[in-house]
Amino acid sequence: MERVERKACFGGWQEVWEHDSETLRSPMRFAVYLPPDVQDAPVLYWLSGLTCSEQNFITKAGAQRYAAEHGLIVVAPDTSPRGQGIADVDDWDLGTGAGFYVNATEAPWFSHYQMADYVLHELHALITAHFPTNGRRSITGHSMGGHGALVLALRNPGTFASVSAFSPIVAPSQVPWGHKAFGAYLGDDRSAWAGWDAVELVKTASERLPLLVDQGDADGFLEEQLRPELLEKACEATNHPLTLRMQPGYDHSYYFIASFIGDHIAWHAEALQR
Amino acid sequence: MERVERKACFGGWQEVWEHDSETLRSPMRFAVYLPPDVQDAPVLYWLSGLTCSEQNFITKAGAQRYAAEHGLIVVAPDTSPRGQGIADVDDWDLGTGAGFYVNATEAPWFSHYQMADYVLHELHALITAHFPTNGRRSITGHSMGGHGALVLALRNPGTFASVSAFSPIVAPSQVPWGHKAFGAYLGDDRSAWAGWDAVELVKTASERLPLLVDQGDADGFLEEQLRPELLEKACEATNHPLTLRMQPGYDHSYYFIASFIGDHIAWHAEALQR
Repeated sequence: MERVERKACFGGWQEVWEHDSETLRSPMRFAVYLPPDVQDAPVLYWLSGLTCSEQNFITKAGAQRYAAEHGLIVVAPDTSPRGQGIADVDDWDLGTGAGFYVNATEAPWFSHYQMADYVLHELHALITAHFPTNGRRSITGHSMGGHGALVLALRNPGTFASVSAFSPIVAPSQVPWGHKAFGAYLGDDRSAWAGWDAVELVKTASERLPLLVDQGDADGFLEEQLRPELLEKACEATNHPLTLRMQPGYDHSYYFIASFIGDHIAWHAEALQR
Repeated sequence: MERVERKACFGGWQEVWEHDSETLRSPMRFAVYLPPDVQDAPVLYWLSGLTCSEQNFITKAGAQRYAAEHGLIVVAPDTSPRGQGIADVDDWDLGTGAGFYVNATEAPWFSHYQMADYVLHELHALITAHFPTNGRRSITGHSMGGHGALVLALRNPGTFASVSAFSPIVAPSQVPWGHKAFGAYLGDDRSAWAGWDAVELVKTASERLPLLVDQGDADGFLEEQLRPELLEKACEATNHPLTLRMQPGYDHSYYFIASFIGDHIAWHAEALQR
């Protein structure tokens, strides 16, 4: 594992590391923010959206200020394996930059696209081994990464102290982005999709982990791809705790994320210190 | 004048506008952040560094949070004229993206590269005419833009309520970046350079406007291009008020700017409300 960036930031360090992932059979980069005087700190995982690398969140969200204040380590992985010999297509919403945080079962994807296992197991083991964590973790993300955060938390009860999402794809089984990605990664049998769909997972969740979701009401993807009302309905039906905040005027950009990442980090810090 | 971007951000609006500049004889873009419930607000000008457009600061510095808190309008222009028919060279430190905030006197530059007049007069008139300002202004910037902020404030006593800079080129007459740019824009006669050099201007400043300068001590350009000790010496010699903060571990990046922009905005807000 090699450090490729190290920048002083809000009294701590914003770093980027590269390693050869066994799970993904790909070189991978991840970003890690280390707050000032870090020791025995909890970890917040951030999962980015379509087209992003590990860079978008660390350069645009302004999260370091809040992570420094609350003493959180923040880890942001890349959004897919990438590079020579790894399946890809020309589209921006499938393949490179669009791993969707699932474990693919279909050719040609399954030999590299195992992002769920990567984030949950390999990356977390690396973080625990190399950085001064206390073993506790929470998870959040944006759009495809909001989907990833909700799904990884709902599939793995007891793993995350808290979960939140910005403009998540809450029901990939019911929207075009999900149809395309799940069709490719998981195949045509839609019963396999339910295990990676937050709206479906909420219906059978064994743990009542509260969900915090922020969604801009001027988001151009709101009605066709994001559809937070489906999550609201599913949570109501099963009495799953959900705080859904429709933010007036906000769109799908990092200006939206920057405006509310402080709230999310405070929410996670509170859960992680409980 | 046409608005080309409008993003909700920290309760206000991050906008980008395009207009045809008479001063520069070029289409120009500038960014403007409007804080929540803005009316009769003072304006802080941000001047960016080499290679930047109006985008770098607004996407990476996280300034909107502080501008919203203090009720400041923040304006960030592009760093040069650019486009068809405008003099340029292949270098990143001359021509497009490298206007150096001077008024060029030499061919082929003088017909478009009038960035000092643009920022001081044309842009300020546009901002005053189109946005709810109270007429007061301050100025700050980074690297080449830190130089620009210091020079525009020192050349124009009574114009700015306050001035600050991040990692400024304090003595362009004495460093390679300045030699190259001033040689091209202002010609070989070095007496003309002194009027655009903060260290020289401090020596004869009629106004004792306090200077706030932050500089990372791990900045790769520190010793060859930035040389804050020259400003320190010049200020000591003439008893010009200077707060120079050497920030340990910080480099030349936006991670550095993001870490201290809150301090700078508070400093300017205080002066603008005095």
